[in-house]
Amino acid sequence: MAVAPIGTHCILEVRGCPFHLLNDLAFIEQSLELASQKGLSTLLQLTSQKFDPQGVTALALLAESHLSIHTWPEHGYAAIDMFTCGDHATPKVACEFLIERFEATDHTLLVLPRGSKIRESLAMIDGPLAGEEELCPVNN
Amino acid sequence: MAVAPIGTHCILEVRGCPFHLLNDLAFIEQSLELASQKGLSTLLQLTSQKFDPQGVTALALLAESHLSIHTWPEHGYAAIDMFTCGDHATPKVACEFLIERFEATDHTLLVLPRGSKIRESLAMIDGPLAGEEELCPVNN
Repeated sequence: MAVAPIGTHCILEVRGCPFHLLNDLAFIEQSLELASQKGLSTLLQLTSQKFDPQGVTALALLAESHLSIHTWPEHGYAAIDMFTCGDHATPKVACEFLIERFEATDHTLLVLPRGSKIRESLAMIDGPLAGEEELCPVNN
Repeated sequence: MAVAPIGTHCILEVRGCPFHLLNDLAFIEQSLELASQKGLSTLLQLTSQKFDPQGVTALALLAESHLSIHTWPEHGYAAIDMFTCGDHATPKVACEFLIERFEATDHTLLVLPRGSKIRESLAMIDGPLAGEEELCPVNN
């Protein structure tokens, strides 16, 4: 069965962020809420967890899919992803908001199509990804 | 500040799955729990939502990061991702388990490194991804 284009998955890495921002559970939860709004998405449920000795995870269940933030304050680093189905949401705008809010000095943003286009996109690439499932060898 | 290798992000698409499996909230929740175990990860919190007229989202907050399942029963399709930090978890094993559990006839699995290696991996690619942030042009 053919699968229609489903949506967009933004994979964001932010670096050089202040420790105190990345270790503040309330700040991260509020960031998730604000980013959902900036991304024109609807937040239905929010779960979060503070880790010991540092670090926060917060997950937003969206009407359009999800938004996650995982922080490593000791590295000034956070791993973020936002997956939105349909074409009304603006996950890249949400990512740009988070880059600024976390005061990142550096970032990497990868925008993946989900649904029918992911395979075409991978097939387009003339390099190690072509015909491969792994963007980079992993150990497991 | 240099960021250490953080972990592995598996982006999985499954196709050709039976409608009744993908539309069963309890089955999807149980799949999330079992996949967390297969992936040698620790599930801390689970949130889920059933959509009208069909479709399910389930999110697992893991000690190692997260696992998400979003289903489109009408397309026989589910979009899954599992991000695990550290090197003890086995997200690819969890993905293989879900491919089988959902009785998928077709799938695409993309394995992304997160942390220091993501930029190196993108730079390795001699193709449209090199120097680009987008794997495929998107509209927003």
